[in-house]
Amino acid sequence: MSRSVAGPEIERLIQLMARLPGLGPRSARRAALHLIKKRETLLGPLSDAMRVAAERVVVCRSCGNVDTSDPCTICTDAKRDPSLIVVVEDVSDLWALERSGAVPGRYHVLGGVLSPLDGVRPEHLNIEGLVSRASEPGVGEIILALNATVDGQTTAHYVTERLSHLPLKITRLAHGVPVGGELDYLDEGTLSAAIRSRTAF
Amino acid sequence: MSRSVAGPEIERLIQLMARLPGLGPRSARRAALHLIKKRETLLGPLSDAMRVAAERVVVCRSCGNVDTSDPCTICTDAKRDPSLIVVVEDVSDLWALERSGAVPGRYHVLGGVLSPLDGVRPEHLNIEGLVSRASEPGVGEIILALNATVDGQTTAHYVTERLSHLPLKITRLAHGVPVGGELDYLDEGTLSAAIRSRTAF
Repeated sequence: MSRSVAGPEIERLIQLMARLPGLGPRSARRAALHLIKKRETLLGPLSDAMRVAAERVVVCRSCGNVDTSDPCTICTDAKRDPSLIVVVEDVSDLWALERSGAVPGRYHVLGGVLSPLDGVRPEHLNIEGLVSRASEPGVGEIILALNATVDGQTTAHYVTERLSHLPLKITRLAHGVPVGGELDYLDEGTLSAAIRSRTAF
Repeated sequence: MSRSVAGPEIERLIQLMARLPGLGPRSARRAALHLIKKRETLLGPLSDAMRVAAERVVVCRSCGNVDTSDPCTICTDAKRDPSLIVVVEDVSDLWALERSGAVPGRYHVLGGVLSPLDGVRPEHLNIEGLVSRASEPGVGEIILALNATVDGQTTAHYVTERLSHLPLKITRLAHGVPVGGELDYLDEGTLSAAIRSRTAF
């Protein structure tokens, strides 16, 4: 599969495209060919958009979000509730929650979850920054919006312990039936949680 | 899904990424975030590789291949058999055949297949160029390496007709069992063809 059949410029494009998540060697070739065919409308603009992103996007030193300003647009948004910090694993989770429009406060991106197997220890995550932000006056609640995986929940417990000396309300996302979900397809753990956390109709 | 949650620079990158084949809105966001995290090692180099490709890659006027020279490296390769032209639908098929290393001759990219339903007529394909190349002295065989689909085979018949006035041998790829394939998983048409075209052991 690694036999070079196109020129070096095209091969380099294919090789770099193949390093994107979701693209293998075959789909990277397909994508590169698509780009070359749509040179004016896609390849040029995408190259420019990447250069702009490479030059201008920075990581927010406060929350870990990626944006073109530091502190980021969310951290500097005066309309956000300053008493609420939502802790997420990754920027993609921050984006998902922002799309829901359900978070009135700000975020804190840990940059991963604790994973002894993968060698991810507390010092590899942005936990010190969270403790420091949570210690500021005016912060009242921390929502742990971590994935419902073993590593996510281990991390949630660890973070809770690190924040236990502060007079904070610490909450986590509710477990239950996804909106639009069919009971028949859900696992027993989710169904048990949904029964336990039932609400008045 | 279209609620803008990242800055305009990142949103533009995501939107352009989502236009690549194989990437939807969700995987485009994931890929864009991956690029931003790997700014030095991936985002910058990929942007450069795209700019180089946009500036330097051209379509070969002889065969329709994409390369940084016109005529392309394959067309100008003096070691190739000048009597053989392999007709393919797309550059991706040319790359696939080149990886096999089984083609001693040159190629001709039609740029699609005839498809009355999609409005693709002969004048939309590079058939005139093929007739012109096939008329040159020294050309002895045309291999029709078109996909084994209805449209591919319709196109093969049409091309054969257009070349019928020339003293050429016109062949097509063999049908049969893929190497490494299991009979149990193959359709009846392929198995019938493999039986009909059986060879001495």
